[in-house]
Amino acid sequence: MDNHELLKKLVKKTDSKIVLLVMDGLGGLPVGPQSKTELEMAKKPNMDKLAKAGVLGVADPVGRGITPGSGPGHLALFGYDPIKYLIGRGVLEALGIDFPLQHGDVAIRINFCTVDDKGIITDRRAGRISTESNAKICDLLKSKIKISGAEYFLEPVKEHRAALVFRAKGLGDKINDTDPQVTGVAELPMTAEDKDSEKTKKLAEDFLAQARPILKGENPANMMLLRGFANFTKYPSFDEIYKLNACAIAQYPMYKGLARLVGMDVLEVGPEMDDLFAKLEEVWSKFDFFFVHVKKTDSAGEDGDWARKVEVIEKVDKQVPRVLKLGPEVFIITGDHSTPSRLKAHSWHPVPVLISTEYSRTDQAKEFGERACLQGALGRIPMKDLMSLALAYALKLEKYGA
Amino acid sequence: MDNHELLKKLVKKTDSKIVLLVMDGLGGLPVGPQSKTELEMAKKPNMDKLAKAGVLGVADPVGRGITPGSGPGHLALFGYDPIKYLIGRGVLEALGIDFPLQHGDVAIRINFCTVDDKGIITDRRAGRISTESNAKICDLLKSKIKISGAEYFLEPVKEHRAALVFRAKGLGDKINDTDPQVTGVAELPMTAEDKDSEKTKKLAEDFLAQARPILKGENPANMMLLRGFANFTKYPSFDEIYKLNACAIAQYPMYKGLARLVGMDVLEVGPEMDDLFAKLEEVWSKFDFFFVHVKKTDSAGEDGDWARKVEVIEKVDKQVPRVLKLGPEVFIITGDHSTPSRLKAHSWHPVPVLISTEYSRTDQAKEFGERACLQGALGRIPMKDLMSLALAYALKLEKYGA
Repeated sequence: MDNHELLKKLVKKTDSKIVLLVMDGLGGLPVGPQSKTELEMAKKPNMDKLAKAGVLGVADPVGRGITPGSGPGHLALFGYDPIKYLIGRGVLEALGIDFPLQHGDVAIRINFCTVDDKGIITDRRAGRISTESNAKICDLLKSKIKISGAEYFLEPVKEHRAALVFRAKGLGDKINDTDPQVTGVAELPMTAEDKDSEKTKKLAEDFLAQARPILKGENPANMMLLRGFANFTKYPSFDEIYKLNACAIAQYPMYKGLARLVGMDVLEVGPEMDDLFAKLEEVWSKFDFFFVHVKKTDSAGEDGDWARKVEVIEKVDKQVPRVLKLGPEVFIITGDHSTPSRLKAHSWHPVPVLISTEYSRTDQAKEFGERACLQGALGRIPMKDLMSLALAYALKLEKYGA
Repeated sequence: MDNHELLKKLVKKTDSKIVLLVMDGLGGLPVGPQSKTELEMAKKPNMDKLAKAGVLGVADPVGRGITPGSGPGHLALFGYDPIKYLIGRGVLEALGIDFPLQHGDVAIRINFCTVDDKGIITDRRAGRISTESNAKICDLLKSKIKISGAEYFLEPVKEHRAALVFRAKGLGDKINDTDPQVTGVAELPMTAEDKDSEKTKKLAEDFLAQARPILKGENPANMMLLRGFANFTKYPSFDEIYKLNACAIAQYPMYKGLARLVGMDVLEVGPEMDDLFAKLEEVWSKFDFFFVHVKKTDSAGEDGDWARKVEVIEKVDKQVPRVLKLGPEVFIITGDHSTPSRLKAHSWHPVPVLISTEYSRTDQAKEFGERACLQGALGRIPMKDLMSLALAYALKLEKYGA
C-alpha cells in the first residue's frame, strides 16, 4: 500500500488550515566571508522565532544525491512519489498556460530559434522575441498548418517558448529533443523508441515540414526546436487523496502548471512579493490548503548571486507576520530543492524545512538554517512525507488501526 | 524503478575522480580508560582536518540492528542493495582467487581440517597448513577425482582454504555447511532444501566420497569441510551503472573478489600499508574511481586489540596527505561495517562516514569519530546511498526531471 492509499483511509475534513510557503531553490551552501549559507546569512527574525518554537528538519526531494528538477521537487512537496509520477517538460509547459490537457495527449515544448541559410542554429532562443510576436507567429502557423490523424493545438507561452499538443489515441512520447543544446549545428533529427512514439514522430515531422516554409520569412524566429515530448496522465487530486480544498498562489507558469496537475485552484496573482500575500489574505476563507510560491530565491541562486538570494529571503521574512495573523494551524516554510549560489544550479543537498505548529516537540534549533535544521526534531525525511506530517499536525488524520 | 535504474539515466562521464578508502570494520565502541572508541582515540590530524571541512554522517550497511558480513558491507558501499544482492561465501572465495565464475556455477569454500581415526574433528583449520601444501593436495585430488554430471574445479586459496566449483545446468545452492563450527564432533551431513540443490548435494557427496580415501594419508589435512554453497549470478558492473572506470587496490582475496564482482579492475599490490597508496599514485591517471581497502583495522577489532586498531587508524592517517595531493574531487573515508574490539566481532553499529568535497555544507563536527559523525550534515543514511552521494558530489549526475 503506498502512502496515498493509507492517507485516503485516514484523512478527515476539518476546519484547520495549512500554508505551504515554498521558497524555490531555498537550500544553499556556505558562501562569502562568514561561510554561512544564504538562509543562515539572511536577517529573518520572524522565521527564526518560528524556528525556535516549531519543528525543523531537512528533506530529500527525490533521493540522496539526486538533483531534482522543479517538477519532481514540487510533486514531492505535494506528497506524490516523484519517481512514480515523473512529468515531462512538455506537459509542464502546457499546464503552465492553463491548457486543458486530456489523458493521453502528447505535449511538446517549442523554442522558436534562429537559423542561418544553411539551417545552422545561430540563436536557440530567437533573441527572446516578445510574447506578442510569439503569439502572432503561432496564429500564423495555426491558420496554415493542417495535420491529419490527430488534433493539434499550438499556444504561445512566454518570449520564445510555445506549447504544441497532439491529441489522438495511442500516441507515445519516447522521442528525443530536436534541440542540440548548442549553437553552430543544425537541429537534431527525431528518433522514436517504440511504435506509439513513431506515430507521434510522424505527426511532429509533418508539423515541422509545414512550419518550415511559413517561418522562413520571419526574423529572428525563422525556425523552431521541439523539446520534452511528454504524455499527460491524470493525477489523483489533492481533494481525492487529502480531502483538501487547495489553492495555488504562484506567479510563474510552471508552478501554476504543477499545482493544476494535482487539482489545486490556481489563482490570478500580481507580479510582486506583496501580491502573493495579499492574495493569501483575500482568499483565506475559501480554502484549507494554500501553496504559496516564491520564485526569486531560485533565480538568484541560478545566477550565482548569493547577496540577492539573501535579500529575497529577507523580503519573504517581512511577509511572515501577515501569514501568522491569519492563524493557520500548520505553516510550513521550505523549498522544492536546493539551488546553492555557489553551484549556480539546482543541487542534491537536502532542503531545510520549518513546520510551525502548536504540537511541536521543542528541539535544539534556535534559528532557521541548514545547520540548525540538522538538529531539528523532524530529522532527515523524504520530502514526500511532508504532506502526511502537515495533515497530522493539522489534526486531519484518524488513528491507523484499532 | 530501483536506485540503479535511476542512476543509469542520470550519470554522465566526467573527469572528476572519487577515492573510496575503506578501513575494514572501522566503527567501534568506547573502550579503555578514556571511554572513547578506537577512531576517537586515534591521533589522526589529517582526517580530523578533513572532517572539519567535509561532510560527516553514519551509515547502516544493511539495516538497523543487522550485523553485516564483509560481502553485504562492501556491496552496500558499492551502492548495491545488500538484501537483493546477497553473495555466498563460496562465490566470494572463488572470486578472490580470480576464478572465472560463470552465471549459474555453484561455488563452495573448502576448509581442510584434521580428524581423528573416528572422524571427529580435532582442528577445523588443519593447523593452518601452508598455501604450498594446500596446492599440492589440490593437485593430488584433481588428478584422481572424476565427477560425472558436472564439470568441477578445485583451486587452493590460502593456508587451509580452497575453492570448489561445480558447473552444470540447474544447480541449486540451498545446502548447509558440513562445518559444525566446533571441534570434538564429526562433520555434519548435507541437506538440500530443493530439487536443484539436491543435484548439487549429490555432486558434493560424490566428491567427498572420492576425496576421503585420498586425504586419509595426509597429515594434518586429512579431511575437508564444505561451507558457503553459493550460486554465482552476474552483477551489473560499475561501468554499466555508474559509467565509472573503477579499480580496486586491496590486499586480501575476499575484497579483490568483491571488487571483481562489480567489474572493477583488481590491481596487484604489495602487502604493506605503504604499498596501497603507492599503487594509488601509480595508477592515478588510469581510473576515475579508486577503492582502497585496509584490512588490519578489522583484524585488530576481531582480536579484541583496541590499541592495535588505534595504531592502524593512525597509520592510515599518515597516508591521507598522499591522497589529497592527487586531488580527488571526492574522497570518502569509511568502513564496511563496525568491528568493535569490545565485541571481538562484526557488529550492527552504524559506520562513521567522512566525505571530503568542495560542495559540503558545514556542520558542527570538528573531528572524525562516531560521536562527531552523529552531528554531521549527512545524517544517518543507508550505506547503499553513499555511491549516489559520491557521484553527486563529483558532479557526475544530471538533474532528474524538468
